[in-house]
Amino acid sequence: MRENGRNGAERDKQRHERDEYYMRLALREAEAAMAEGEVPVGAVIVQGDRLLAAAHNQREQLRDPTAHAEMIAITQAAAARNDWRLEGCTLYVTLEPCPMCAGAIVQARIARVVYGARDPKAGACESLYRLVNDPRLNHRAELRGGVLAEEAAELLRRFFRERR
Amino acid sequence: MRENGRNGAERDKQRHERDEYYMRLALREAEAAMAEGEVPVGAVIVQGDRLLAAAHNQREQLRDPTAHAEMIAITQAAAARNDWRLEGCTLYVTLEPCPMCAGAIVQARIARVVYGARDPKAGACESLYRLVNDPRLNHRAELRGGVLAEEAAELLRRFFRERR
Repeated sequence: MRENGRNGAERDKQRHERDEYYMRLALREAEAAMAEGEVPVGAVIVQGDRLLAAAHNQREQLRDPTAHAEMIAITQAAAARNDWRLEGCTLYVTLEPCPMCAGAIVQARIARVVYGARDPKAGACESLYRLVNDPRLNHRAELRGGVLAEEAAELLRRFFRERR
Repeated sequence: MRENGRNGAERDKQRHERDEYYMRLALREAEAAMAEGEVPVGAVIVQGDRLLAAAHNQREQLRDPTAHAEMIAITQAAAARNDWRLEGCTLYVTLEPCPMCAGAIVQARIARVVYGARDPKAGACESLYRLVNDPRLNHRAELRGGVLAEEAAELLRRFFRERR
């Protein structure tokens, strides 16, 4: 029992380190968005140890309202796998997904979502809706929020401060 | 007063005829999806008398879980206008939008959504969620459902019957 407990704690620690590692990549994408004058949000998609996608918000540059970081990453990952089903994949994103992106996560059957900062105004994983684990929909994702949340929130605050 | 009432009824009639006209274009797109082995859903986007986009579901062909009819139409319309804001536009779609597409409608600030058949399993305009007119989000769209619903539903039934 004691051994199991110790192994469980070790596994949790490894998972948390892994989550922080990939969230740092997502934060790097958010910084790239910032440098391009876009709202700084970044996302990566991972399957096992394979990085399938890394993207950032490009709404202004692409003049496309659907060009959120998560949407671009999902399209990239599906292209990398040559399959629209992203079963077994984890999506890391610096900001809680909006309804569009949370809906896309369900459509893509992504297994796990890890996000950074909460979005009280439009978040659709926990804040306004719980779209990624609605038992009425045909897929549910495991969810973890708050990973490197302060770094993600600080980038957003800096962006909106500089814009004023 | 009587004149106003008569004009109001006339305007409603013209609007309904116009809705049916554009929904027939959306149905034609749904038929194109069907012919390509895709779940038959079609969408068009109109601004005044200008048709900005016409698209159908291409999830299988593009191997992209985000390639619903509405998403492709929104990206097309934004490209046609060279602006991600689709203010003043109406989106016609043969099936009630899912959470991803309803979320994209809000992101794109589409003024009006007209849909055909209801989707009790995943519809996010009236069935499971009311995403396009949630007062907490930063945009709301006017909504009309049930336009040529039977034609749209029959296409979907035929598709799933033939697949079995």
